[in-house]
Order: sequence, then C-alpha cells, then structure tokens
Amino acid sequence: MRTVRVNLGQRSYSVIIGNGVYLRLGELVADRARSHRVLLVSNPTVFALYGDGVVNSLQEAGLKVVTGLVPDGEEYKTLEQAQKLIDLAVENRFDRHAMVVALGGGVIGDLAGFVAAIYQRGIDFVQLPTTLLAHVDSSIGGKVAVNHPRAKNMIGAFYQPKIVIIDPAVLATLPPREFKNGMAEVVKYGIILDEGFFTWLEEELEPIIQREETIIAEAIYHSCSLKARVVEEDETEQGKRALLNLGHTFGHAVETLTGYQQYRHGEAVAMGIITACYLAESQGMMNTGEAQRVRELQQALGLPIQLPRLQPELIMQTMHQDKKMLAGRLRLVLPQGIGRAVIRDDIDDGAVLAAINRAMV
Amino acid sequence: MRTVRVNLGQRSYSVIIGNGVYLRLGELVADRARSHRVLLVSNPTVFALYGDGVVNSLQEAGLKVVTGLVPDGEEYKTLEQAQKLIDLAVENRFDRHAMVVALGGGVIGDLAGFVAAIYQRGIDFVQLPTTLLAHVDSSIGGKVAVNHPRAKNMIGAFYQPKIVIIDPAVLATLPPREFKNGMAEVVKYGIILDEGFFTWLEEELEPIIQREETIIAEAIYHSCSLKARVVEEDETEQGKRALLNLGHTFGHAVETLTGYQQYRHGEAVAMGIITACYLAESQGMMNTGEAQRVRELQQALGLPIQLPRLQPELIMQTMHQDKKMLAGRLRLVLPQGIGRAVIRDDIDDGAVLAAINRAMV
Repeated sequence: MRTVRVNLGQRSYSVIIGNGVYLRLGELVADRARSHRVLLVSNPTVFALYGDGVVNSLQEAGLKVVTGLVPDGEEYKTLEQAQKLIDLAVENRFDRHAMVVALGGGVIGDLAGFVAAIYQRGIDFVQLPTTLLAHVDSSIGGKVAVNHPRAKNMIGAFYQPKIVIIDPAVLATLPPREFKNGMAEVVKYGIILDEGFFTWLEEELEPIIQREETIIAEAIYHSCSLKARVVEEDETEQGKRALLNLGHTFGHAVETLTGYQQYRHGEAVAMGIITACYLAESQGMMNTGEAQRVRELQQALGLPIQLPRLQPELIMQTMHQDKKMLAGRLRLVLPQGIGRAVIRDDIDDGAVLAAINRAMV
Repeated sequence: MRTVRVNLGQRSYSVIIGNGVYLRLGELVADRARSHRVLLVSNPTVFALYGDGVVNSLQEAGLKVVTGLVPDGEEYKTLEQAQKLIDLAVENRFDRHAMVVALGGGVIGDLAGFVAAIYQRGIDFVQLPTTLLAHVDSSIGGKVAVNHPRAKNMIGAFYQPKIVIIDPAVLATLPPREFKNGMAEVVKYGIILDEGFFTWLEEELEPIIQREETIIAEAIYHSCSLKARVVEEDETEQGKRALLNLGHTFGHAVETLTGYQQYRHGEAVAMGIITACYLAESQGMMNTGEAQRVRELQQALGLPIQLPRLQPELIMQTMHQDKKMLAGRLRLVLPQGIGRAVIRDDIDDGAVLAAINRAMV
C-alpha cells in the first residue's frame, strides 16, 4: 500500500493505492466520518461488480449506507441526476455531517463530487475510482462538475475529497478500450511534466500492455504523484494546472462534434496530443524525433494518432466556443520537447488549422 | 463612504457603505473585472427602480451587461431558476472570467451567488444588496444557496463575493415591513455579540423608526462589522458562526409550517428570538429583565414578540427535521444574557416545548 499526499492546507488528503484496498474502505473512512450516514453513488455496471464488497465494508465499520445508482454514461452527468441524488439525501434526512462515496469512473466521481459540494453547502466526499482514467486523473484534484447541454463540465466546483482510495486490482474487470482510455492520460503526464517517466513508459511497454500488476500500480502511483504536485501549486487552475489540459482543447472539439458517443475521452485527448505535437513542431518547440516518439508510444498502446475526418474549420470553430477560451483568444497547451509544456495564446489560426489538417491525413 | 474589510486570506473583500455609492458600481468593479462580461441578476421590482442606474454605471466603465430577471419571491430561489441563469450565461458565451452582479434582496443575492459559485466552477461575484436584511446579513459571509422543495437553503456553497456595495439610500423605497424585516437581524447582533450596540439601539429607537439616514448607516456599518468578525473566525460554520442562527431554528419551523408566505424571514426570526429568550430564562441563562428588554425593543420596532397559534408539538417536530440538527440532537443557539450567546444541544424537549408554549400565549 502506497500513499500520495495532496498538500492543500486544511483541504489536504491522502491518495491510498493498493491491491485489495477497496475492501478496507469502511475502516479507512470510519475514522473521518462525522456522522454514520453515507450516500454511496455508483452505476449499475460497477455496483454489480463491487457494490456488495463496498457496502459490507462500510456497514462493518458501523456506517449506514443509502445507495444512489445513476445510469451508466456521460449523458447522465447532468444537473437533473445531481438533483435526484440530492432528493435521495433529503428524503433520508442526511445532515451536513453525512458523507458521499463515489464508486465508479470519472462520470460518477464528477457527479457525486458535485452533489457533495452543494448539498447543504458541502459535505464530506470520498473517491473510490474504478477506471484507470479515474485512478490517474479525475479522482484527484477536486474538479467536480456536471455537463450543460451545450458544453461539458460547465456547472461545477473545486471541491477536494477527504480521501481517495485506488485499488489497481479492480482494473482486472476493465474492458481493454477503457484501459487505453486511461493510458492516454498517463502518457500525457510524461509529455508535460517528466521525460524520465515518458522514457520509462517506452521501456515498460510490454508489461504495461500485458497489464502486469506491479507495473500498472507503479504507473498509477507516479501519475498520481505528478498530478498532486500540479494541484498543490495551482488548485483552482489560475495558471500551471492548465498544462494538464494538453490535447484537451482539440479533444473536446472532437468530442463535441461527434456527440460524445464515438470516442472515449482518452481517445479524443490522444488525438489532441498528436495535433498539439504537430503544432509545437511547426512553432519550433518540438523536434521531429520527439513528435515521432509520442506518436509511436500512443500507437503501441493502441491509442489513436489521427483526428477523424471532420471539417477542419468546424474543429477550429468549436475550439473557439470551448470554455477555456479567454476573451476570444484561443489558449493552447503545447509541449516544449518531452517533459515540459507551456500555455500559448499567440498562435495564429492558420498554424492551428495546418496542424489539424496534418493530423487528419 | 465607510469600508468594512472581511479578512479571509485570498478570499478577502471589502464591504463599501455609502449613500449614492450604487451609482459608482461600474468604477468600483471595473478594476477587479477579469473580462468585460457581466451577468446582472435582479427581479423586476428592484430592476424597475435601480436597473437603469446600475446598467449605465457598468456600461460607462466599459463592461457589457446581460440582464437576467428572476420573478420576485422566495419561491423562485430554486435550482430551476439557477439553471435558467446558467443557460443565459452559456448562450452569451460567458467564460470563466465573467462576473455575476446581484442587484436585489437576499433571494437574488443567494441565487445569483450560487450561480456564480457553480458556473464553470466559480466566477467572480459582486453583491449590491437593496434591502436592509441583505445589507446587514445575507450579502456578507458567502453563504449562497437555493431551496429544495422540502427545505430552505439545502443546495448551496460557501462562496465569497469580490466586493459588497451597500447604499443605504436605496432603503428609501423599501416598504415598512421590509425595513422591520432587516431590523430583526440588527437586534440579533446586539443580543449575541454586543451589549453596547443593543443599548445604542434602545437609545436611538426614535431616529431608527424615523429612518434617519446617518443613524441607519451607522446601524448597518456596525452590523456588518460584527458579522465580518464572526465570518473571519469561522467561515464555513464549524463553530462560532452558528451563533448567528439565534432564533432561526424556531423561526424556520414557523416559516416551514406556514409555507413561507405568511411571515417574512425577519419576523420569523424575531419570534424565534423571543422563544429562545424564554428558554434561556428557564435555563437560568438570562434573567427576566433581560428577556423583557429584548421583548420591548422588538415590540417598539414593530416586530413580532409571539409565536403564531400552531401546534407546539408540530413546531418541535419540524425543528427536528431542520438541517442544523446534528445526528438527531436539537442544537439551539441561546442567549447568555445580552451580548453573548452559546450553542446548546443538551436541552430536553420538555423545556423547549414549555418555551414554545409560553411564546404562544
């Protein structure tokens, strides 16, 4: 069992990583619980796999559990579903010392965290992520949100959990496509923050693809540590934290234009990273060999290395509508070689369009 | 023009109090604005009186204003109305550097503040309160919320404004009943925090009733200062801030049982304060003369000094459902003489019932 500490003053917390640790949820949260009431939020798929173990663990620790199941899928990350969970908490007379536990992937974590953030002006929140993407990204850092019909994550808060419990063993039931989905974010950490980690991923490619337990646990631990350092420096994304959005502006545009159905988030991010590499290359920020390394690693992991055939101008236009756009100027995260990235808002649209075109070939 | 500073580290802000200051809104916020987009939230009644002046002031400072009007009344402080305002912000492509300005009473401030808290995980928020109640209470301290059909302020956040602009001159258009509504909270500050202030209110009774400008401005300034000190000590109501709820547990029960239509919030609080005084008297925490002073001051100000004829047991039961109840135990704020108050969760229901009965005679 390893621990990554996220140091945020009074809002500090631990990320506990260990095989089988999910069955110790009850004892891990019981100390922190300010009442014995727990709202467990999950989806039917995940709950069928891990619900009994989690509920038993909580009950054995003396906690009373009410379960709120949300249908599986990004399209349920809505204010309406948040309201239903709030109704459930009100019906069960949860007071402001109750606790919300999220058991699931990013959708469940974001939705449950948002409910915890606004119920009675904020109640305790615990993350028990069950996908690789949630392990290495969404469960850490306190970004919680629901989608607006016209834009993702438009309604939300920065609301840190009290503890994050990561059990790599649950990945055994994760479909291959979902595993790759998470690996896209793992690769991203290497590109923007840590060349050594990127090289390690290249070297450990085979055991990663084979999902060797110790190697995956190491990749998760390292990714969580990198993310924790960024969040500590910039909790509410005033500056450096935006670097974590490498590939996301392009990726969100693809997700928006394809209705969030065709590509998983990590796939869209992977496409966006390649596009960002091409753009960085055209700006002299990355050399051809570096862009090539990124492409090869993503390809070996089974991640996309091309944009889908959409109208390039439409992608540009959608990017301009993205919420990260500041007062009309496109802000892009671009790699500066491998292991470093910067935010640029001075790239002209022509260069962006050229990179999009190149990524589409 | 006087300023009360609320010191909360990075979330510190100023409360600016001055006659005519509302027309200087534009220049006061333009420096702080991170983009030129403003969502002005108000209701038709207030907007008809002050909307033009406010919009002009913002426009002259170079800001672009989109106005969202919410029907007048507590029954519109809902998640649905919050969603409509968010839709308006999305339609107008507000980014996360936009600003929300609340122009109105507590309902508008709470609702607009909640929208500011959750739109794109939080955007800047400015309070321009137009009722005495909002001047002395709801505009300071960052409690924002909407109501749940089954309980008030169930969905919300602690989200501090960037600046609060209080113009006592706007009270000239405030109906007498609304003025009294605010005075209930002013009296409350004296009881729980400052005997000298309570005595000053007794001495300045006539000019207060006549709404003499300088005296009212002084009462507002003093109330804001007292509230600011409490909020600084306990921003998220883990302890001392709960003292501000004197009279509120009884008051909320009355509001709930009468459907929020019959009594104004301040009236319900005034009834609750009297009941709390009787209970304090029965516990030896207040002597008969002190309870008598509270009753006389409230009566002179035209505030209720009795509970309405409801079933006492029903009031008890409703109090037990109040969100401030902690794990089944009734938590009550009780005055300890005049100028001090404490939180008690060890009073038996019989004594509470007796105080309710006495306040009903």
